[in-house]
Amino acid sequence: MTSALLTDRYELTMLDAGLRDGTANRRSVFEVFTRKLPEGRRYGIVAGTGRFLEELKRFRFGEPELDWLRREEVVAPATIDWLADYRFSGDISGYREGEVYLPNSPLLVVESTFAEAVLLETLALSIFNYDSAVASAASRMVSAASGRPLAEMGSRRTGEWSAVAAARAAFIAGFGATSNLEAGRTWGVPTMGTAAHAFTLLYDTEEQAFQAQVEAMGPSTTLLVDTYDIPTAVETAVRVAGPELGSVRIDSGDLPSLVAQVRAKLDALGAPNTKITVTNDLDEYTIAALRAAPVDSFGVGTSVVTGSGHPASSMVFKLVAHEDARGEWVSVGKKSAEKATVGGRKFPVRARRNGFATEEIVKIGTDEVRGSERPLLVPLVTAGVVDERYTGPEGTLLAREHRAASVGELPASAFSLGRGEPVIPTRYE
Amino acid sequence: MTSALLTDRYELTMLDAGLRDGTANRRSVFEVFTRKLPEGRRYGIVAGTGRFLEELKRFRFGEPELDWLRREEVVAPATIDWLADYRFSGDISGYREGEVYLPNSPLLVVESTFAEAVLLETLALSIFNYDSAVASAASRMVSAASGRPLAEMGSRRTGEWSAVAAARAAFIAGFGATSNLEAGRTWGVPTMGTAAHAFTLLYDTEEQAFQAQVEAMGPSTTLLVDTYDIPTAVETAVRVAGPELGSVRIDSGDLPSLVAQVRAKLDALGAPNTKITVTNDLDEYTIAALRAAPVDSFGVGTSVVTGSGHPASSMVFKLVAHEDARGEWVSVGKKSAEKATVGGRKFPVRARRNGFATEEIVKIGTDEVRGSERPLLVPLVTAGVVDERYTGPEGTLLAREHRAASVGELPASAFSLGRGEPVIPTRYE
Repeated sequence: MTSALLTDRYELTMLDAGLRDGTANRRSVFEVFTRKLPEGRRYGIVAGTGRFLEELKRFRFGEPELDWLRREEVVAPATIDWLADYRFSGDISGYREGEVYLPNSPLLVVESTFAEAVLLETLALSIFNYDSAVASAASRMVSAASGRPLAEMGSRRTGEWSAVAAARAAFIAGFGATSNLEAGRTWGVPTMGTAAHAFTLLYDTEEQAFQAQVEAMGPSTTLLVDTYDIPTAVETAVRVAGPELGSVRIDSGDLPSLVAQVRAKLDALGAPNTKITVTNDLDEYTIAALRAAPVDSFGVGTSVVTGSGHPASSMVFKLVAHEDARGEWVSVGKKSAEKATVGGRKFPVRARRNGFATEEIVKIGTDEVRGSERPLLVPLVTAGVVDERYTGPEGTLLAREHRAASVGELPASAFSLGRGEPVIPTRYE
Repeated sequence: MTSALLTDRYELTMLDAGLRDGTANRRSVFEVFTRKLPEGRRYGIVAGTGRFLEELKRFRFGEPELDWLRREEVVAPATIDWLADYRFSGDISGYREGEVYLPNSPLLVVESTFAEAVLLETLALSIFNYDSAVASAASRMVSAASGRPLAEMGSRRTGEWSAVAAARAAFIAGFGATSNLEAGRTWGVPTMGTAAHAFTLLYDTEEQAFQAQVEAMGPSTTLLVDTYDIPTAVETAVRVAGPELGSVRIDSGDLPSLVAQVRAKLDALGAPNTKITVTNDLDEYTIAALRAAPVDSFGVGTSVVTGSGHPASSMVFKLVAHEDARGEWVSVGKKSAEKATVGGRKFPVRARRNGFATEEIVKIGTDEVRGSERPLLVPLVTAGVVDERYTGPEGTLLAREHRAASVGELPASAFSLGRGEPVIPTRYE
């Protein structure tokens, strides 16, 4: 399936008008960045890079797409011919996937003709805005869980393909597994899950349901214990599976007190190694509130796939420089009202002291790197060729490792769940 | 591309355990409903039905999927064989797409064996939860706009395939167009859009950019006038396009006062027929706040594709009845804590008086229809065969018409933007 029509109509009409007089052939630089983080957030996590690179390879106008554009008269016939040959042939650099980003971080830089680059705006933003929203929220949950594992299980609370992207983004941010099978197949994210309430309700008794599950999956499975009465279910679970029962799952109720009761019950039943997993409408705040409770792992649904209150990062894709009629580079930026942008090609570095990030410095007109500054842009696409290290399951794993390293550089105030300013300031230089 | 792995792993492990002892072959009824509307909302709009029916036809486990499941040992070999032959052969009924729904409305009813139905849970919920969130928010915006046209342009603020679904859902809820080309191609939603700030910035002067656009698209195009100085841009726009200029677009600033100034300016320039479209971070509240302003149309992005604060409807897919070991039907429901469900097959009707809805009555154990009651379930799938009237662009248009009729039955209090209770009560009978 081509990704070429996952595009706003105006990208094509701009192309059409700009090709007509040749202006669209001017070399241009576009940057993706956000003017601000969601209210109160300390940092964001870049996600979507690997997906964007794969979609870029599929961004082709085939006969069915061209036919439709022709019939709808979206663009002139000459532009249809241009689109038929379209392959992105420029350069793209960007923050590593998994990198911490801050307001005004130029996290993707697209350099090519205006014509080639402008077509990618909608697709790039759809991917980066959603995936980064999920990864940014997930990263807070990972910190809140203080080392206890998290699984993403929110597929049912977002569009069916966004679900796959969300599973991947949460994994990059440090989640350990997902319920989503397609994310397992496509991106190599470990998958998990055993049974829902429907399974228990299908059987004539809870005991029969537990027996059926243990027979199919062995005693190390996770039994769901809140369909009827929790203490009774815990007893039944241990009776059926024995003390080797892997874990019990609780999906409702007042978790801090419930979890303590269930832990005591499991211990009393001689199942001290049986773990407790909780899955009841969790977010970073309720996870943090369970710090003192004997929870062994968390399953998170709605809140992670919807960015915990911020389902869209507010990233934009802006023209910052282009060649003029004489072939000279000019910096450009929208001047108006609250949406002004800073023109010119950027070179961002992260300044550090004693191993901790102190400042995001966005340099304009220089790419000099001083002392402990870490340059943030890496080449992703060179003359149209995608760097395959960043794609597929391997790229996803690399991004997960990079997120851990990048977050590891942040000062402790980054992990406060209270509202605050970005953890380090961004400065233009 | 198959939709079969857009599924939570536990659907397959439940299937596996239930097939092993035959219990998964019990005839079952599952229902999709929500326990509550988002805080303060008066009603919701069902969307996703047409998309679900099309994905159902693609819900097949091909060799690549079976291979992966086999390698990952997600289920036993016998279950792999069962999946290879899987075609949903049961019945599905539901609310018409575009229908108003309320808490506990059983908006989709799936009847088949447990095995066949349970596999559809994740996919059905992903689609209905997202599409209905968008349609429900969009419907409020349509009311707030009081008859002035709206275009959906939020593709960049949601996952790239969710963007297509959002365009379709907003159209069903009464939006007139979308920026998203794939939604135009696949679902027949009218597409719109002309140019972004980048286009103006690319040219050496704003005047040259406007000239290029008018040459390509004619004077009836929409010129974006807020890249530099708005009054100057409006003058330039009328000078370049003449008084036949179609419209000007404003994407920043304090809209109520700006729009009035621009209107006065256009009139003074002899362009009284040139329309004004605004696109600056709109939602139902800011649209309503522009009621007195001379705005001709609205473009809405982030807020509509993210459900205006509620990006996921909280719909669930619950087993409500099944045959027991003796082949007798039993009603079932989860008993625990705050998530209890009402068992039994439901028959919902909308009671009306003088043409206006007064009550949602969910009947259990009877399908008697009295006087002015409107039955709400229609057959969507019969013995595995999809009713094609509800699919494709035609189904989408039908849903749009049905939404208008269904919303037209609601009392005026439905359209208050203030927080309140569901507009009519739901009662079990």
